[in-house]
Amino acid sequence: MSYNTFGHLFRVTTWGESHGPALGATVDGCPPGIEISEEFIQVFLDRRRPGQSKMTTQRQEPDRVRILSGVFEGRSTGTPIQLMIENTDQRSKDYGEIARQFRPGHADITYHQKYGIRDYRGGGRSSARETAARVAAGGVAQAVLKALVPELTITGYMVQMGEKHLDRSKFDAGEILNNPFFLPDASAVAEWTDYLSALRKGQNSVGAAVEVVATGCPVGLGAPIYAKMDSDLAAAMMTINAVKGVEIGEGMAAAALTGTENADEIVMGPNGPQYLSNHAGGILGGITTGQPIVVRFSVKPTSSILTPRRSINTAGEAVEVVTQGRHDPCVGIRAVPVAEAMMACVILDHLLMDRAQTGGQRGQIG
Amino acid sequence: MSYNTFGHLFRVTTWGESHGPALGATVDGCPPGIEISEEFIQVFLDRRRPGQSKMTTQRQEPDRVRILSGVFEGRSTGTPIQLMIENTDQRSKDYGEIARQFRPGHADITYHQKYGIRDYRGGGRSSARETAARVAAGGVAQAVLKALVPELTITGYMVQMGEKHLDRSKFDAGEILNNPFFLPDASAVAEWTDYLSALRKGQNSVGAAVEVVATGCPVGLGAPIYAKMDSDLAAAMMTINAVKGVEIGEGMAAAALTGTENADEIVMGPNGPQYLSNHAGGILGGITTGQPIVVRFSVKPTSSILTPRRSINTAGEAVEVVTQGRHDPCVGIRAVPVAEAMMACVILDHLLMDRAQTGGQRGQIG
Amino acid sequence: MSYNTFGHLFRVTTWGESHGPALGATVDGCPPGIEISEEFIQVFLDRRRPGQSKMTTQRQEPDRVRILSGVFEGRSTGTPIQLMIENTDQRSKDYGEIARQFRPGHADITYHQKYGIRDYRGGGRSSARETAARVAAGGVAQAVLKALVPELTITGYMVQMGEKHLDRSKFDAGEILNNPFFLPDASAVAEWTDYLSALRKGQNSVGAAVEVVATGCPVGLGAPIYAKMDSDLAAAMMTINAVKGVEIGEGMAAAALTGTENADEIVMGPNGPQYLSNHAGGILGGITTGQPIVVRFSVKPTSSILTPRRSINTAGEAVEVVTQGRHDPCVGIRAVPVAEAMMACVILDHLLMDRAQTGGQRGQIG
Amino acid sequence: MSYNTFGHLFRVTTWGESHGPALGATVDGCPPGIEISEEFIQVFLDRRRPGQSKMTTQRQEPDRVRILSGVFEGRSTGTPIQLMIENTDQRSKDYGEIARQFRPGHADITYHQKYGIRDYRGGGRSSARETAARVAAGGVAQAVLKALVPELTITGYMVQMGEKHLDRSKFDAGEILNNPFFLPDASAVAEWTDYLSALRKGQNSVGAAVEVVATGCPVGLGAPIYAKMDSDLAAAMMTINAVKGVEIGEGMAAAALTGTENADEIVMGPNGPQYLSNHAGGILGGITTGQPIVVRFSVKPTSSILTPRRSINTAGEAVEVVTQGRHDPCVGIRAVPVAEAMMACVILDHLLMDRAQTGGQRGQIG
Repeated sequence: MSYNTFGHLFRVTTWGESHGPALGATVDGCPPGIEISEEFIQVFLDRRRPGQSKMTTQRQEPDRVRILSGVFEGRSTGTPIQLMIENTDQRSKDYGEIARQFRPGHADITYHQKYGIRDYRGGGRSSARETAARVAAGGVAQAVLKALVPELTITGYMVQMGEKHLDRSKFDAGEILNNPFFLPDASAVAEWTDYLSALRKGQNSVGAAVEVVATGCPVGLGAPIYAKMDSDLAAAMMTINAVKGVEIGEGMAAAALTGTENADEIVMGPNGPQYLSNHAGGILGGITTGQPIVVRFSVKPTSSILTPRRSINTAGEAVEVVTQGRHDPCVGIRAVPVAEAMMACVILDHLLMDRAQTGGQRGQIG
Repeated sequence: MSYNTFGHLFRVTTWGESHGPALGATVDGCPPGIEISEEFIQVFLDRRRPGQSKMTTQRQEPDRVRILSGVFEGRSTGTPIQLMIENTDQRSKDYGEIARQFRPGHADITYHQKYGIRDYRGGGRSSARETAARVAAGGVAQAVLKALVPELTITGYMVQMGEKHLDRSKFDAGEILNNPFFLPDASAVAEWTDYLSALRKGQNSVGAAVEVVATGCPVGLGAPIYAKMDSDLAAAMMTINAVKGVEIGEGMAAAALTGTENADEIVMGPNGPQYLSNHAGGILGGITTGQPIVVRFSVKPTSSILTPRRSINTAGEAVEVVTQGRHDPCVGIRAVPVAEAMMACVILDHLLMDRAQTGGQRGQIG
Repeated sequence: MSYNTFGHLFRVTTWGESHGPALGATVDGCPPGIEISEEFIQVFLDRRRPGQSKMTTQRQEPDRVRILSGVFEGRSTGTPIQLMIENTDQRSKDYGEIARQFRPGHADITYHQKYGIRDYRGGGRSSARETAARVAAGGVAQAVLKALVPELTITGYMVQMGEKHLDRSKFDAGEILNNPFFLPDASAVAEWTDYLSALRKGQNSVGAAVEVVATGCPVGLGAPIYAKMDSDLAAAMMTINAVKGVEIGEGMAAAALTGTENADEIVMGPNGPQYLSNHAGGILGGITTGQPIVVRFSVKPTSSILTPRRSINTAGEAVEVVTQGRHDPCVGIRAVPVAEAMMACVILDHLLMDRAQTGGQRGQIG
Repeated sequence: MSYNTFGHLFRVTTWGESHGPALGATVDGCPPGIEISEEFIQVFLDRRRPGQSKMTTQRQEPDRVRILSGVFEGRSTGTPIQLMIENTDQRSKDYGEIARQFRPGHADITYHQKYGIRDYRGGGRSSARETAARVAAGGVAQAVLKALVPELTITGYMVQMGEKHLDRSKFDAGEILNNPFFLPDASAVAEWTDYLSALRKGQNSVGAAVEVVATGCPVGLGAPIYAKMDSDLAAAMMTINAVKGVEIGEGMAAAALTGTENADEIVMGPNGPQYLSNHAGGILGGITTGQPIVVRFSVKPTSSILTPRRSINTAGEAVEVVTQGRHDPCVGIRAVPVAEAMMACVILDHLLMDRAQTGGQRGQIG
């Protein structure tokens, strides 16, 4: 039982607040002998880093990760890996109002009620800044997966932002890292940019939906009944700030299908079973089929906005909340690399669990 | 780490296969001194029991629960509660084809590949029959919640079955237990009955969506970052057989909202903060607000259908699978009491976690 | 976190009270495809069974174990294995005094104070009868170890009973199962018998010390810092009723040694490193060396005795407690098979953990 | 499941190697609102710090702890507390021999075999330096206990060092912090000093035994069967480097007692039950009685000594190992504050577990 640890065997404990001296992740259970470097992890952190465009917060953080333990002469030793990111852009300012007011739609009020105390500076522990630590830990997971399952790829991208939807007929994975939206369609970038700029100027924010796909995942990962791959993925995505829904494969649309439509028929291919469709999203009975794992999730709009909202303060008095400061107009954008990191952690975790119970052996077909 | 245990402090381990001698749940962490009886638990099991209408499988099981430990003179002792349900309707028959074939959309193939062995009788461990054990454990959770949080109610109901959607303007909670669909609208029951009968006669099955709502839940339950109430609820629902999507509050629809639309404004009421809307579904930052907790999830159509589907067998040969036997045309129906049980377990679990860390004390407002 | 579960990956949850309808163990995490039968497990249970001599309680229990789940056609399926032992010798009697009085040296009073309720019949949950469930679970662990590490042996025996000590110069492992004391010295059995008979007739009981040795354990099991093999073994033994001390290798005597005496020197043998002594008891830095693992523990005298002792009752009144009934004069004797079971569980657990993290690969020497 | 985490609800994950840039502890589950400062924690670290006398290693480390998260304006927020101690005395030197040789009695060889890689600098992860992180975490536990159970005291001291034994008739708790041995008898300090100096000059080291006593611990902490207070204490002590045996109350001596001798008789006192003796060491059935909790453990002699010992190197060649460097002649001395820290963590952990399950309510007597 742990409040701030994620994972069964590859265990990531994140720590730190938005405006404290540092934040980071303690990674336990990493296999030994894996090549891991700060440079390798930094690539993932740089993707998530704010301040890169007007589409995300203007907070400037180099977000340099340091490895404090668990790696010796470039390889993991099997002992805990401590990843630390120092907070360098802690502006000294008066937090008076934020300290006493509760933003509607924000965790301010529930933290206050539960703990009786909260680090209100920049959202403290509930800030999206915590996800930097996850991305660093995800980098470690990616390094291990690269060594153990080199054919695995994990790719996240935006499929919706408010009224704008990805046109799947124009899907081009090669474009994802070429625009600030992680959008796999170059032709829509200008339109999405205008849409979000207008919202931002209108002192508003907007929701989003993100899809993450893993290809090349081995058959047989996942452990029924209560450590199902889909259950752990759903839990993982739902821990990301502002996420309100998670779907595997058909997701909520499965409610409208009939059994004949939904069944992914199977034929025998040269390398084993092949599926003629993937309504299941790569998971049956909580266990991976070898097909692409498809996860989608929604992110609610940023609750810190300039438009005044009715609320109360710690004294119980009515206030109008207007959140100044450097906030993403669409937090869903930066959720993309975070979701990739979470998926890397979950898949690695299940790979280790599977090695424990089955030794990685598979039942034969044919 | 456990494959078959659910919960942090109120821990439920289910065990048993569809056609073994018995199945059940081992419940650890139950507070002592709580009134618990087989009769109290049986009420919940009876709701889930198959064979009650043509809408669910015709398998006849009395599903009588026995308490084998942990309850003394009608009250819990704080030691593990063993709940056992004997399987009485184990028809002796030839399982030849099921033993060798893989049903499309079913866990047959992934269990075979992962474990190299599977109890194919009636689906074995992956049968929806496993959920009887959860409902029994949920009965224990309900008994504890009744004692500790008497104002709490947990109510599940169907909101969609294939093409049919609940008309929320006709919502009547009092009707839910009066029809085989757990449908809170008496006027739609005939139509839903005809729709499902036609599908069943057409040798087909259909998906569904279920909503579960908890009212009266205390403020402050849930533990950021990785034991958030919504994350644990999503994990819980996603462990239920055939579930493919989970939503909290606005769910996937949050992707389309703006920040001004989504913010649940707050005013001070006579008993503390009051929210003017509930887009959040009762949870902010992973912690309960005191508003109703609203969870929705989709259930894919039953994969065991009479319509032939292409598949392979254990020898890797192509086969046409036609699943004979007593199968629910819409497994989503019986997911309703299962989801209520899971929600009861999650809420109780978080109540105990909160007692551990904060002693149940709350930060004051006003 | 669990109160009644033992193990990290091979997880055993025992349940049941002394005089309830049944007790048992829920075993989760068992590798699939392992030959397991009730007969195989029964052998271990029969060793622990009471009523076999005057040296142990006269309670007559066949202690037949039933496998209710997780084994199909003679092999484990990777799903939870439920082991149930029905309590057949539940004498109907008046428990009046036991219900209200607290036996000195017994858990009666602490259970009462902690839980406010206790199943006083036969000691309820705190009865040594709970260890039958562990021995059954240990049988499952033994079956898995037999398949995965056939060269492993686990052997427990008595080394002390009150004033009597094993003469190690007469050690004969072949004699252990030939006498009611699990004593590896046939020549001392008569003397030990007389000694214990005299104590029993004197309405008294006596303590004991037990040693358990595992040979053939692979190198490299154990996980620093907080899942060390020795730490987990110490925890395991200390959970056995009445155990008050645990030693690894030199144990408490290590306090008297110098560094030159204690160092187990190493030479290179044909199959790898060889140690010239085994002060370490087969564990260095929490990790197995491949030498025999040597664990010793003490068991305090049975607290249920016929000699009157001063105590109080639930009303706080002074009473003289005389415990009638069928009690072992030396509970340490039956701790021998229990300790073997615990060691089997711990070693298997670490074998699975090691597979998870290292894949079972070993660093080479030479 | 975690390799480097200790505790159920108050969870401490230590990280770091002897000669890496830093080491520390991630503390999760700390109750909110507790006064915690670096100064408060530093007091405990200073007690453990090396370089204070010739009795311990001459390595000079200020061991300054920094709190990086989880504390805001002097009080805990309920979020993870990251404690970091930078390693300032990392001498640059040639580690050639240590890198290739295995010290007899040391974890060098098992780490190499298990992980295939080890940070050999100063013992890496297996260095006693790891215990600094525990002491820091123990400081957090002490701060919480001070707030929640102000009457609790935890006191550790040496009872044996090689041939020297504490004369209990001269026990004076007030002397413990006045000498480098944590010895509660001022009159023996000179003799112990001479004894250890002679051993050190003789290029040798020596074992020790330590006792830790907690007074004022509440009744009812501890959770049968597998989270017993004594089991968790035994596990905790056995995780400390070089510990080979753990005793509760009578410990191994319980094997020699009869039931009449061992029973701690009970009378009713003005504030509840009183015990006429404490053979049990404050724990019955795994649950605290309210009497002093008494734990003893042995520490083997330092394995790094100047006297040559036979061993092998990574090439499998025979070598004579002589360990140069700054090593404690008796590592047992510095185990005293470490053991106090572990006991504080275990007691707090059980206090939180008890709040979860029982709400802290106690069954009444009288």
